[in-house]
Amino acid sequence: MKFFINDAQDVVNEGIDGLLTDPNLTRLDNFPEVKVVLQKELDKNKVAVISGGGSGHEPAHAGFVGKGMLTAAVCGDIFASPSVDAVLSAIIATAGEKGCLLIIKNYTGDRLNFGLAAEQARELGYKVETVIVGDDIALGQEVEQRGLAGTVFVHKVAGHLAEKGKSLDEIAKTAQKVANNIFSIGLSLEEGKKFQNPESSRLSSSEAELGLGIHGEPGVKTIDMEKADDLMSKAVEKLKEYLPKKNNEKFVLLMNNLGRVTPIEMNILLNSFQKLEIARQVEYIIGPSQLMTSLNMSGFSISLLKLNEGLRDSLTSEVEPVSWSIRKFGENSSIESPDLPDTMPFKPSENMQFKNAIKAVAEELISLENDLNAIDEKVGDGDAGSTFATAGKKLLEVADKLPYANTAELLITIGRILAREIGGSSGVLLSIMFTGAGNSYKEESNIGKALMSGLQKMKDYGGAKEGDRTMIDALQPAFSALENGKKIDVVAKKARQGADSTKEISSTKFGRSSYLSEESLKGIPDPGAEAVAIVFEKLASL
Amino acid sequence: MKFFINDAQDVVNEGIDGLLTDPNLTRLDNFPEVKVVLQKELDKNKVAVISGGGSGHEPAHAGFVGKGMLTAAVCGDIFASPSVDAVLSAIIATAGEKGCLLIIKNYTGDRLNFGLAAEQARELGYKVETVIVGDDIALGQEVEQRGLAGTVFVHKVAGHLAEKGKSLDEIAKTAQKVANNIFSIGLSLEEGKKFQNPESSRLSSSEAELGLGIHGEPGVKTIDMEKADDLMSKAVEKLKEYLPKKNNEKFVLLMNNLGRVTPIEMNILLNSFQKLEIARQVEYIIGPSQLMTSLNMSGFSISLLKLNEGLRDSLTSEVEPVSWSIRKFGENSSIESPDLPDTMPFKPSENMQFKNAIKAVAEELISLENDLNAIDEKVGDGDAGSTFATAGKKLLEVADKLPYANTAELLITIGRILAREIGGSSGVLLSIMFTGAGNSYKEESNIGKALMSGLQKMKDYGGAKEGDRTMIDALQPAFSALENGKKIDVVAKKARQGADSTKEISSTKFGRSSYLSEESLKGIPDPGAEAVAIVFEKLASL
Repeated sequence: MKFFINDAQDVVNEGIDGLLTDPNLTRLDNFPEVKVVLQKELDKNKVAVISGGGSGHEPAHAGFVGKGMLTAAVCGDIFASPSVDAVLSAIIATAGEKGCLLIIKNYTGDRLNFGLAAEQARELGYKVETVIVGDDIALGQEVEQRGLAGTVFVHKVAGHLAEKGKSLDEIAKTAQKVANNIFSIGLSLEEGKKFQNPESSRLSSSEAELGLGIHGEPGVKTIDMEKADDLMSKAVEKLKEYLPKKNNEKFVLLMNNLGRVTPIEMNILLNSFQKLEIARQVEYIIGPSQLMTSLNMSGFSISLLKLNEGLRDSLTSEVEPVSWSIRKFGENSSIESPDLPDTMPFKPSENMQFKNAIKAVAEELISLENDLNAIDEKVGDGDAGSTFATAGKKLLEVADKLPYANTAELLITIGRILAREIGGSSGVLLSIMFTGAGNSYKEESNIGKALMSGLQKMKDYGGAKEGDRTMIDALQPAFSALENGKKIDVVAKKARQGADSTKEISSTKFGRSSYLSEESLKGIPDPGAEAVAIVFEKLASL
Repeated sequence: MKFFINDAQDVVNEGIDGLLTDPNLTRLDNFPEVKVVLQKELDKNKVAVISGGGSGHEPAHAGFVGKGMLTAAVCGDIFASPSVDAVLSAIIATAGEKGCLLIIKNYTGDRLNFGLAAEQARELGYKVETVIVGDDIALGQEVEQRGLAGTVFVHKVAGHLAEKGKSLDEIAKTAQKVANNIFSIGLSLEEGKKFQNPESSRLSSSEAELGLGIHGEPGVKTIDMEKADDLMSKAVEKLKEYLPKKNNEKFVLLMNNLGRVTPIEMNILLNSFQKLEIARQVEYIIGPSQLMTSLNMSGFSISLLKLNEGLRDSLTSEVEPVSWSIRKFGENSSIESPDLPDTMPFKPSENMQFKNAIKAVAEELISLENDLNAIDEKVGDGDAGSTFATAGKKLLEVADKLPYANTAELLITIGRILAREIGGSSGVLLSIMFTGAGNSYKEESNIGKALMSGLQKMKDYGGAKEGDRTMIDALQPAFSALENGKKIDVVAKKARQGADSTKEISSTKFGRSSYLSEESLKGIPDPGAEAVAIVFEKLASL
């Protein structure tokens, strides 16, 4: 396992240093002995809201320091509680007349060190209240519940009330009430690995675990590795044992990425959640995102907070820390998709010369399939012949229904057929060319000019130009001759010369041959350019 | 490798379904054949801003749909361009009179499919402009540059201008200018693995790669695995070859997590960046966060956008999508840390009885070291005796400087010594008790009551109660006797009874012995309770 670190000993300090590029944040100058991150512009007329604990849970806790959330975060080493002195420093540095609230996750070390700092601060005359958060239901409600990502709800609500100028008593009471109404559980496929000597997982490829802690504590239960839907069901099922039973209860969901789950997987998990009955009771969501990680754990946790009217403002008000975001949670919806234009919207009309030409070209393309595939096998992926043959077959199919009498409509229709029925880069490039040519012909009835204009579009979108060993090498001289009023046999000769010239182009950055060596290209024409030349030779022979 | 998915075939659709729990978003109802995510409340009086491309880059692109950024995102399968029909559907569904802008990452598939859709839409009468983003400098400026995470800058600026009601021409021009002023490069330790049959890495444990694409394209260069600082230096060095050379140029930094890098590592990388000269030219930062990932790649990319005054508003205005956030970027700062109270702030004073007691207890604790360690080896981690002996030594050291004549000050001082000099849970718990007792004694000069009050604090913060096989089992009966005015010999007897009772407690959820089996605890006292009993026996003997 490789990590973006300098030295495993320095990850916490350097991580904080990186965070402190935020000019709204600063730290106490006895860093790193004491790791206190705090708002740079303190308003001591407001209650200070302090949290913290071991590191390795980023963005928690320092990532939630900022107006509207935490006044300060006290950071310990990886998974280790900060010292009493560190917490006391944070209190003295931030608390004014109105005092401060310590939000403590329910772990022995945090409870003791924050608790003692609180006692010492009180002894110094500071008003200090503490809130213990134990939102993890994995170990049952009888024994001590650990603090998990649900703690972030408490940061938000307390931070909001402090910002509003509320009293310490009121904030502490509300914060504790919020803490008591949070229900969390985690599920992991692989535990977080410490940066120093990462060990192999304790879970096999067929195992996952439910009800884990965020410091490497094993899950309460090892369960089978299953589909996302089933894993989410299991987590929610466990959670429901502890939720209030009322059906009209509303919740706020916090969906936490415990480390290295990708955004698309988090969205899949959110979709799994959405399918469950409980989702109908969820009104807001925080995440899915990294809120309180356990290093690089491959896991997620869900936290549900009982919503009441009083909480709405506290949860939705704006805050400075970018790691917090909340949005409404609802059911999927769709709107009607627009009708796309028919592939062949134009009235069929006659022009025998054009019709015969189309039919002849189509048959020629079909007959070339094997020869062109053979060339393409040497310089590409071997399917150029088949692509052109498919185009030929499709053109034959519709040959009696085309708008031959209107050249613009004919060109546009060919463009549409190529786009919808052929696909691949060649199909789309030719489609762009014919569509562009059709649009140009509408403005000025000059077939050579129209085709040159279409070719320019192809070059613009495709990026290749003449000399890059693509079909442009045959198309460009041929269309140029057409534009200059040359007869079809001259045009065909130009196309042939162009196609033959590709045999000498042994280096290219574009198209099918850009990954091949010069050696392997020598003497072999580009199959697209070859097809173009043959088509013009066919037209000249009619 | 384990993933939170249901079926590898369904990840894109289910990921979009999860995202669509956002009630501001919806999709076209021919989903999933066509995967178009769009704003639910469309304002057709404004230019529509559309982007998209292959999936596997979440949150890009659908995660940036919302007021102020994208009007719609057209999603392909993993790393595969969406179809022309899908793009055309998005255009028709969102574009009004003012037309629409397509923001296209510079990959052949995207350029062709979005380009053809643009041509078709124009043919239907829509006003469509396109912007091609090729911010990747890895392949040099001569050849085609790929579109990387810097594209998100273009989403933001175009979205802002559209929201402001600007014309398509103006938006397209500004967007293309922004696109031309973005310089990006990626660096990866391990490539992204597809959910289906993930393969082992092409990089060894001593390798990294520089200048990679986001669809599994190998890096331009395989480099040595190094420290974060060195890797960041290499990336920035490469980037600087292409940056404007002026020193007063200001930039906006976008720091993108390419998949599964943890937040703490991203912060470390940000700190690495901060140490480089170029950082002095950076005024704002987006991230570090997942903006345009390559599945679960272990890598990052940095993008620098040349800042000009006109862009400031466009970049900093508020938007609906939570995946976008911007903040000021600056240098680290510190503020002075507060002076912590001295461990021994009180004037020494005399009380010979107390002084002798303290000395006797301290010596007793020192002499007990080996015996208590031996007991703790059977039921804990074997260091209880050493912890108490350290406390004894420290007390002896300061025994001539304590404020013996003021009981409250004496208790508080003992509390401070225990917290600062002893550490560990026992030290902090005892410190909490003595500090609490001292504060209580200040209110009412009753030593028994004060100690009971301190004990209550210890129980509150520590979570254990009588019967949980901790020192509380000896402290509680002893303090209770003291509170009831009993003499010291009775108190000592109560402590002894309490300590002895712990031999029978074979199951506990707290403290040192909570991980041990009932069998191994039988008949052995808790070392903390034992120490308490011996201390009281010593005091009774004086």
